[in-house]
Amino acid sequence: MKIKAAILGATGAVGQRYLMLLENHPSIEIVSLMGLSSAGKKYSEAVTWIGNGQIPERFAEMEVMETSVKNARGCDVIFSALPSEAARKLEKDFAHSGFFVVSEASAHRMEEDVPLIIPEVNHQHLELIKAQRKERGWKGSLVTTPNCTVTGLAIALKPIDDSFFVKEVVVTTMQALSGAGFPGVPSLSIVENVIPYIKDEEEKVAVETRKILGRLSSNKIEERKIKIAASCNRVSVLDGHMESVFLVTKKRIDEQQVERELSSFSSLPQKLKLPSAPIQPIIVRREPDRPQPRLDRMAGTVPGMSVVVGRIRKGPDRNSLLFTLLSHNTIRGAAGNAILVTELAEKLGYIGV
Amino acid sequence: MKIKAAILGATGAVGQRYLMLLENHPSIEIVSLMGLSSAGKKYSEAVTWIGNGQIPERFAEMEVMETSVKNARGCDVIFSALPSEAARKLEKDFAHSGFFVVSEASAHRMEEDVPLIIPEVNHQHLELIKAQRKERGWKGSLVTTPNCTVTGLAIALKPIDDSFFVKEVVVTTMQALSGAGFPGVPSLSIVENVIPYIKDEEEKVAVETRKILGRLSSNKIEERKIKIAASCNRVSVLDGHMESVFLVTKKRIDEQQVERELSSFSSLPQKLKLPSAPIQPIIVRREPDRPQPRLDRMAGTVPGMSVVVGRIRKGPDRNSLLFTLLSHNTIRGAAGNAILVTELAEKLGYIGV
Amino acid sequence: MKIKAAILGATGAVGQRYLMLLENHPSIEIVSLMGLSSAGKKYSEAVTWIGNGQIPERFAEMEVMETSVKNARGCDVIFSALPSEAARKLEKDFAHSGFFVVSEASAHRMEEDVPLIIPEVNHQHLELIKAQRKERGWKGSLVTTPNCTVTGLAIALKPIDDSFFVKEVVVTTMQALSGAGFPGVPSLSIVENVIPYIKDEEEKVAVETRKILGRLSSNKIEERKIKIAASCNRVSVLDGHMESVFLVTKKRIDEQQVERELSSFSSLPQKLKLPSAPIQPIIVRREPDRPQPRLDRMAGTVPGMSVVVGRIRKGPDRNSLLFTLLSHNTIRGAAGNAILVTELAEKLGYIGV
Amino acid sequence: MKIKAAILGATGAVGQRYLMLLENHPSIEIVSLMGLSSAGKKYSEAVTWIGNGQIPERFAEMEVMETSVKNARGCDVIFSALPSEAARKLEKDFAHSGFFVVSEASAHRMEEDVPLIIPEVNHQHLELIKAQRKERGWKGSLVTTPNCTVTGLAIALKPIDDSFFVKEVVVTTMQALSGAGFPGVPSLSIVENVIPYIKDEEEKVAVETRKILGRLSSNKIEERKIKIAASCNRVSVLDGHMESVFLVTKKRIDEQQVERELSSFSSLPQKLKLPSAPIQPIIVRREPDRPQPRLDRMAGTVPGMSVVVGRIRKGPDRNSLLFTLLSHNTIRGAAGNAILVTELAEKLGYIGV
Repeated sequence: MKIKAAILGATGAVGQRYLMLLENHPSIEIVSLMGLSSAGKKYSEAVTWIGNGQIPERFAEMEVMETSVKNARGCDVIFSALPSEAARKLEKDFAHSGFFVVSEASAHRMEEDVPLIIPEVNHQHLELIKAQRKERGWKGSLVTTPNCTVTGLAIALKPIDDSFFVKEVVVTTMQALSGAGFPGVPSLSIVENVIPYIKDEEEKVAVETRKILGRLSSNKIEERKIKIAASCNRVSVLDGHMESVFLVTKKRIDEQQVERELSSFSSLPQKLKLPSAPIQPIIVRREPDRPQPRLDRMAGTVPGMSVVVGRIRKGPDRNSLLFTLLSHNTIRGAAGNAILVTELAEKLGYIGV
Repeated sequence: MKIKAAILGATGAVGQRYLMLLENHPSIEIVSLMGLSSAGKKYSEAVTWIGNGQIPERFAEMEVMETSVKNARGCDVIFSALPSEAARKLEKDFAHSGFFVVSEASAHRMEEDVPLIIPEVNHQHLELIKAQRKERGWKGSLVTTPNCTVTGLAIALKPIDDSFFVKEVVVTTMQALSGAGFPGVPSLSIVENVIPYIKDEEEKVAVETRKILGRLSSNKIEERKIKIAASCNRVSVLDGHMESVFLVTKKRIDEQQVERELSSFSSLPQKLKLPSAPIQPIIVRREPDRPQPRLDRMAGTVPGMSVVVGRIRKGPDRNSLLFTLLSHNTIRGAAGNAILVTELAEKLGYIGV
Repeated sequence: MKIKAAILGATGAVGQRYLMLLENHPSIEIVSLMGLSSAGKKYSEAVTWIGNGQIPERFAEMEVMETSVKNARGCDVIFSALPSEAARKLEKDFAHSGFFVVSEASAHRMEEDVPLIIPEVNHQHLELIKAQRKERGWKGSLVTTPNCTVTGLAIALKPIDDSFFVKEVVVTTMQALSGAGFPGVPSLSIVENVIPYIKDEEEKVAVETRKILGRLSSNKIEERKIKIAASCNRVSVLDGHMESVFLVTKKRIDEQQVERELSSFSSLPQKLKLPSAPIQPIIVRREPDRPQPRLDRMAGTVPGMSVVVGRIRKGPDRNSLLFTLLSHNTIRGAAGNAILVTELAEKLGYIGV
Repeated sequence: MKIKAAILGATGAVGQRYLMLLENHPSIEIVSLMGLSSAGKKYSEAVTWIGNGQIPERFAEMEVMETSVKNARGCDVIFSALPSEAARKLEKDFAHSGFFVVSEASAHRMEEDVPLIIPEVNHQHLELIKAQRKERGWKGSLVTTPNCTVTGLAIALKPIDDSFFVKEVVVTTMQALSGAGFPGVPSLSIVENVIPYIKDEEEKVAVETRKILGRLSSNKIEERKIKIAASCNRVSVLDGHMESVFLVTKKRIDEQQVERELSSFSSLPQKLKLPSAPIQPIIVRREPDRPQPRLDRMAGTVPGMSVVVGRIRKGPDRNSLLFTLLSHNTIRGAAGNAILVTELAEKLGYIGV
């Protein structure tokens, strides 16, 4: 029996990515597409399809429903790709009514009893769900996934932090256009150009990373106190966020060991052989000029789910480290990560109790 | 009487920029074009013109001469846009024979008695010429200009360092295609992509910046001991290097003051009203999303000669600062800076003595 | 005394181009900026400035007025850069109230008594104004300018048609992003792509070209009966429409003569030395690989006002001809052409009578 | 038993495509990689890999051999992706020595007894091989595949010509960067630009199309006498040539029928179910804005092997037709087509006799 899922915000850029990733998923099945302004239309008429090729046939003829609890009847999981404003209003209704809601939106990420999950990094935080249900009197639950820039960073930081204890992070990003959704960035703004600003992004990088790397203790997450300075830029790339990272660690850096810790990083999703878990969550490249977004964003056994790290090198201090990472922003940074959260939550018994 | 100049490497990307900038220059006149493989051809036939419009008419019919001292007869100044290898062999001959050589090449930049000049930042270093001539027995002299990425960074650091004392710099660059010359970066490599590596660039950013910000003392330059970590990326932009900068300073940061120091920065070239000196060497933009390469690279009273700084903000510590800068890599970062060096050197009596 | 002008649709892409072109115009002065949704705001706050550098200072602080006749008091000319729908409703009011309206919109172009003018091609058609005023009882008048793709084509066809009598045209365009306005084409749609369709464009190319090349006879324009087949594509270029043209003519083609007729083409605006009239309305390039949008769109004595033609060659028949043309779509294809119309109309006594 | 193949020019852009397409091919196996300047190196060291991801592991460690007959021992088929100059010298040696040579190069395409094959269009022409072997005294044979621009055009023309009899073709292309090989087009030349010229391409479009659509009669190919006028442009797209086509036919156009003939077009490779034969050689799209290179170049059951046709519409005459086609230039236009030729030739008994 497959998990039955509804997609909220099904016609947007991330919504479309859900359809591509779940078209042939072994254990999750989309049974409802919901939208805001597009409700009532056939999916193929409501959407401006930005993926390659055509809309997966199974979904083209489905009707986009109004976003409401009654249209989720029969579903176990709600994948929300709603804009933040709408998420704030609608997601709690679904959680209250018994659904397992996995949200891409930033609306609830920083609430105390809401887990913000990257399965390989902080699956333990899913336990917050118990307190959440209890305190809020919900039959379901609400789990969030991080901002697309945070996801790649937190995955790469995790094994380094475990071994070297990270104190400071300076990160400069070069982010893909799909991160802004559709229509998103006008071509006249970005052709032959770079835009050195993405609204609210730099704040999210700091606070979300600290929450994700934090420790669960007596039903609270104690944030990991790292100083983080982020500068976020938009570049003319379709998919794949690049991040140039500088770290200061407590323990002296051994870059061979860093390489090994990153390459060999593995976690519960790998152990459970979840369908969306790549064998290597982090792939290390040793060529001087990799990762590159166009060449590496789909690397690994589950395309788009591995973070690719390259250019690992010492900084000017013996406690400083430099590297470049690439993470697919609409797969690992959005829909793919949410699907992996769901696969894990199902195994751990959080769904459909 | 105008200064008579020869261009070495006249058909390359920087060589072409010299022709554009000197076509109507009030005090410098190109009288000789030299090349390596292109020698013997008419300029218009030897060059793949990559500038807008057409080759300035005055130069189209000139013959490209072999690169040798005898073909510089009648010249005062030699502008060298040679590749490093060729520069290493050829430039000293010209200096030895009495010419004032201004070189873009990296070959001699780090030699002890060779000034590495950005006129607004370290014009005092030109005094090294005296020792250089004496020790080497040269009738002429050799002055170098920094790597294109260094130039923008050093200009922006100068007033901050003067007021706040810079201890550490973490800089991530997003560099333009013209920085790699012509044919340079293949389109198949960079379309819809970012390349996180530029050969030897990161090392240059560290060592050249420290030399430029150093202090001249008893005919030596004492380098400014700043820790610098650079990550250099190539993006799909034609002209204009963006740099995302993080600083740690000794003095506590007051970002209003930083803004004022940058905006009001002015130096000897401004005082002397040199033709290529912009009224403001640094332009500060307060919009959240500026500078942008396509919009801002030609800002200011001398197009391409001002560094544009934006996004000035405090870092996570009270001694840390973040900002983004943009500098035109083939004007301020190459030909324009070399021309300004020449204008200054002439005023200070270093040319044609 | 300068001509006083108002700009309707002042914050759009073409509206901005008017401001750039009229900032220092010798005989036309902008005294009013009008908008639709932006009315009531300061111009600098209402606009997303897409030009290089900054908003011309004189306009930054002006208030954007509501689009209505009363806000045009003191004006002689109304430049309309309104969307078609709005133009249909609003432009006639201004013409009725005594203003000389020059419109970029397609709304009224094909009406019988409305001139559709490219000054070098069909200035004679301005005479239609007399009939227009009489029949419509207007104190002012309404003149339109063609679609941006038509303008370049009609200019290049004119001298060829005069000498060789054009019977058929097959034209394939590669059009710039600015032709779609702002925000216009989403970057996700066009990066590393071509879109082979522009709504309604191909029909306009046919009907407008036939009207412009038509003959005025007893207050009617008898359209020039040429068969025209157009295929319009969008490419990732900022400004400058390329058109690959195939012609069948009545007279046998002599491509040397074609070159001469194009290069030497000159008309009334050149004779009157109007400020926006380029010395050469058509520039012919003989290199095999020109024109190119980035290199040639600003060629000539009035940047953006000359059409650049290259690759002139015989077709497979002795009566067929091939060439490629480039025309700046927001200057010659929009604001610049409208300004030239105004300069001419003023000389001919159509303004402010 | 698989067909054993060698790749000449294995490190180039088309050579790399062969490796990608043959990595898991059911009936063809690469046993030798040959190169010119790269001979003697390990493949992974000799190549600048421009495909996504990594070099297929099986080939990374293979040594690139010198291009000579003795290094082809054990091979049945030679795939030549050599530059034309080298092809002219080397390919005949292989054919003479008994190999079945399939060449991408233009060197021998127009020779009288050399078949120029697109399997779905003119598989009958393979019979020329018999005359070729006899006249030239070869044990092997030489078959060529067309220019990448010709291939898409000829496939789309074939069913239309069969039903409506094509008299004239006017085609304007917008060609991808990979068509120029690697390093190919410099980024400084093409970013935010279009180049309206590709050396020798327009001539090839005319002569090769006429040969391919010609009729084999008494060991000669009688070319199909169609007037063809081509204009070839380079645009900033990685893969996929777009072609805007205008036709004049003898029979009156019925565009519904055109659609049907194109959609239902099928030929011998489909009948034989060859592994590289797509179920539909031509896919018709009915949306107004398709095909688009990024979205459609990999459409169909064998990615990159189907030509996608859209925007089918009548021209200004009842005997004229307009449409836009897209063809993957390094798959159907190069390596993929050559592989299909080989699959067919094997079935027809031309290989290894």
